[in-house]
Amino acid sequence: MRLGRGIFDFEKPPRVLSCAAVVGKKESEGPLGQCFDLTHADNTLGEDSWEKAESKLQLESVTTALQKVNLKCSDLDVLFSGDLLNQCIASTFGLITTGAPFIGMYGACSTMASTLLNASVFVSSGCADICAALTSSHFCSAERQYRMPLQYGGQRPPTAQWTVTGSGAVILSSDENASPVGITAACAGIINDLGIKDPNNMGAAMAPAACSTIERFFSEGHRKPEDYDVIMTGDLGFVGHDILLELLSRDGIDCSNNLTDGGMLIYDREAQDVHAGGSGCGCSASVLCGYFLPKLLNGDMKKMLFIATGALMSPTSSYQGEAIPAVAHAIEFSVLG
Amino acid sequence: MRLGRGIFDFEKPPRVLSCAAVVGKKESEGPLGQCFDLTHADNTLGEDSWEKAESKLQLESVTTALQKVNLKCSDLDVLFSGDLLNQCIASTFGLITTGAPFIGMYGACSTMASTLLNASVFVSSGCADICAALTSSHFCSAERQYRMPLQYGGQRPPTAQWTVTGSGAVILSSDENASPVGITAACAGIINDLGIKDPNNMGAAMAPAACSTIERFFSEGHRKPEDYDVIMTGDLGFVGHDILLELLSRDGIDCSNNLTDGGMLIYDREAQDVHAGGSGCGCSASVLCGYFLPKLLNGDMKKMLFIATGALMSPTSSYQGEAIPAVAHAIEFSVLG
Repeated sequence: MRLGRGIFDFEKPPRVLSCAAVVGKKESEGPLGQCFDLTHADNTLGEDSWEKAESKLQLESVTTALQKVNLKCSDLDVLFSGDLLNQCIASTFGLITTGAPFIGMYGACSTMASTLLNASVFVSSGCADICAALTSSHFCSAERQYRMPLQYGGQRPPTAQWTVTGSGAVILSSDENASPVGITAACAGIINDLGIKDPNNMGAAMAPAACSTIERFFSEGHRKPEDYDVIMTGDLGFVGHDILLELLSRDGIDCSNNLTDGGMLIYDREAQDVHAGGSGCGCSASVLCGYFLPKLLNGDMKKMLFIATGALMSPTSSYQGEAIPAVAHAIEFSVLG
Repeated sequence: MRLGRGIFDFEKPPRVLSCAAVVGKKESEGPLGQCFDLTHADNTLGEDSWEKAESKLQLESVTTALQKVNLKCSDLDVLFSGDLLNQCIASTFGLITTGAPFIGMYGACSTMASTLLNASVFVSSGCADICAALTSSHFCSAERQYRMPLQYGGQRPPTAQWTVTGSGAVILSSDENASPVGITAACAGIINDLGIKDPNNMGAAMAPAACSTIERFFSEGHRKPEDYDVIMTGDLGFVGHDILLELLSRDGIDCSNNLTDGGMLIYDREAQDVHAGGSGCGCSASVLCGYFLPKLLNGDMKKMLFIATGALMSPTSSYQGEAIPAVAHAIEFSVLG
């Protein structure tokens, strides 16, 4: 039911049937290393390009999530995916062999929320019974495309984040007996552009978008911070997280007790030399699917708000001197019993 | 209601409230030149980059469509858009000033169908009242990104298509009294990869995807070619169109009477030197919104099937020797009275 512009809840909340997270070496060595379903010591995954390695992460995350509940790709009605690579080739090449109807999304690092948002509307409306929502990122394919060849060894400023090598997938079902956890509401973000131009400071570019979405969702959706065990953004990192807390606080919203960020959780900031934390579509996806959703499915938490943030620039727009617009979408997960 | 995997119809068909098409100089000089709402004699649109010119096409198409029915951007619940540029910057930069909740899609030249498909599910489910679905392409931004700088003057083979400079936008409403035309059914495509590697022969790469979607939709959706005044693909061009007719005919489906293609209609093949026809997200979008949807809204046609096809490769995947996967999504429009 429509609650506001781009804000809605569900009479029949789609159920979280299963989820899975697959990550690379650095992520497996971080604080959440034990939470992921599959970890790779070799970030090539045995493939002959970084792009193909990223594609394989996606195929592994969706098939692992399906296997947990004895489903196959042929059980999927629609698969929603996207990634950071030009023309989303990690998703399209990675998921060909699933043979499932495919809808491609682009939301930069907000993609895990935008795929969930679309999949949840399809399932709750009766247009689909079982959908998958997923995304990925890979440190090496992202560096090649957005920054410098790895061999160049460029220095990273303190505000820079580290692109997660990982993928997360969620399987949603229309069967209300299939799982105690459902998606109960969602909010589509409005693009923000506050003039930040530094592609090494994504947190600052994306924090205002997260703030805007949280404030719209709380106000028009009649929610408050205390409703949630956890409010998880992904992936603002340490710099963006502090900015978001400050922005919310200025508007009288105190999330200091339960606001956290995927980019702050996935790495050990000091020991792993990641500067401002993790980033990339795979960051919020793998932390959501590897760490938080299992807590909801196990009954360790009752309600969480997931807000994935995306920086909507490209190298071309940065070369042309443009600022970095950003968007954030929110998904509310609840244990429904 | 779910009819099959990725195939559904609507109890409450979202209504086509309005549409608009905006194109460049070459398109305004073609056979459909008189059909478009806005045409530009200067393909820069007064902007200082091709990317910004493309962004402006999107903003113009959505605002023109809204103005026709006395709506403003602030009336939009959700805006679905995407384009061919890396990280979809034509859409994100073009639509910032709308201030509307934004969901980014990537489906290459299938984008007009994927934005319509998602918008229709949002509107019919009650999650949104008014949504916009749009996309764009621009000859010069596409050439720069996918092929050669324009100044290089590279020769084009006979199978090559010409990227349309244009944008099309559709406004959907949940109000069943708002318009006689509704989206009555849709089909999400399955990615096809038959090994075509020639990026100058997109028609051949995309025709099998169109065939697969048409056959799935007819079979599981219980439809047949005679149900439609027009079955419009976009944008296979002349080469891909002939392949599609042949593929369908081999499987016993005769669409020779009512199958046409946006890429065949938008240019004069001989006089405008376009080789195999038009292409680009803006091709199917501008032909749908400028030519066919007005016919439905005027009552000149009763039912049409729109199938937009997308080639899901990137320059990186082509350099790496990969084939060109393709996808096609179908949207059924009906006059409901």
